[in-house]
Amino acid sequence: MKLLEDRIIMEGAVLPGNVLKVGSFLNQKIDTKLLRSMAEETARLYEGQGINKIMTVEASGIAFAAAVGMVMDLPVLFAKKHQSSNVDGETLACHAHSYTHNTDYNMVVSRAYLTPSDHVLLVDDFLANGAALNALTELVRMSGASLAGVAVCIEKRFQGGGDALRAKGIRVEALALIESMEDGKIKFAHTI
Amino acid sequence: MKLLEDRIIMEGAVLPGNVLKVGSFLNQKIDTKLLRSMAEETARLYEGQGINKIMTVEASGIAFAAAVGMVMDLPVLFAKKHQSSNVDGETLACHAHSYTHNTDYNMVVSRAYLTPSDHVLLVDDFLANGAALNALTELVRMSGASLAGVAVCIEKRFQGGGDALRAKGIRVEALALIESMEDGKIKFAHTI
Repeated sequence: MKLLEDRIIMEGAVLPGNVLKVGSFLNQKIDTKLLRSMAEETARLYEGQGINKIMTVEASGIAFAAAVGMVMDLPVLFAKKHQSSNVDGETLACHAHSYTHNTDYNMVVSRAYLTPSDHVLLVDDFLANGAALNALTELVRMSGASLAGVAVCIEKRFQGGGDALRAKGIRVEALALIESMEDGKIKFAHTI
Repeated sequence: MKLLEDRIIMEGAVLPGNVLKVGSFLNQKIDTKLLRSMAEETARLYEGQGINKIMTVEASGIAFAAAVGMVMDLPVLFAKKHQSSNVDGETLACHAHSYTHNTDYNMVVSRAYLTPSDHVLLVDDFLANGAALNALTELVRMSGASLAGVAVCIEKRFQGGGDALRAKGIRVEALALIESMEDGKIKFAHTI
């Protein structure tokens, strides 16, 4: 998506450890015009697929998920990163590791909100090693729901998470697909 | 807001410890039609106030903040709950306590994204004792920005946080204002 790629080139910063900082428009300050455009593009990519639920995990994926849900007129479900007093009843839980924070956590969702009749689109802001999205696909599998695919704003393809999901037969769409970030230079794979 | 109050009565559950569970439409599964209506009502309440930035704190307030930002066509800023590898540069930080999780944390935002030229609307899904919103007002004060007010989906007025903010002269609007939840019975103060 040209609009997003241009913005990454203009404002993104490559930090040590393959971190791409896009806090000025995506995951700390959010440009809501860009957010709407990304949601519309996602809706176009997954049009006619019978999706009835958008799902993500807290926290930074929530804005994109809410926008996709608003544009596609579908409910949004977000998994929590630990059992909180606001998640009661029977839950589905899956272990995940955050490379960003170097911590392990449980990803939790109420069983009542994810059922075998659901056809789910998983979304997130970033896809790198795929730990969060792998855990989300596991929660979908445990619930008996079916998976329409994955949509992310930015995939860092060289970290392998996206291609590992594709190798399992999962459709993965990235609005900006980064092939490499060597020496601080961002190279995109192709523009959709 | 009648639409929200009706939904709280229909689907909300009062749990021990004054917890109001609204996971089926607000803070785990999100009804995006209701989300849009709440954002439109917030935009109406704060119309013409010269607001140029919507701000919240991760995680469950992000969906409402994104919706308000999209409807008002304004950027959204969310504070993080700890210093992460994605928040670099000079930061503003403020101590806060989570009653929900019974933990202390630092609320952090990049100084570059909150400046003296900003006129900020703070939003969140819940306002109870006000710990998160107090920390957010403190970040706004530290940045030199001005505060237009606060908008929350649900205020549990009997926990005092909203009235403490009002006593400081801050405008606080709650789309659903809960006066009491005694014996599991939810009583609203008035309908806006």
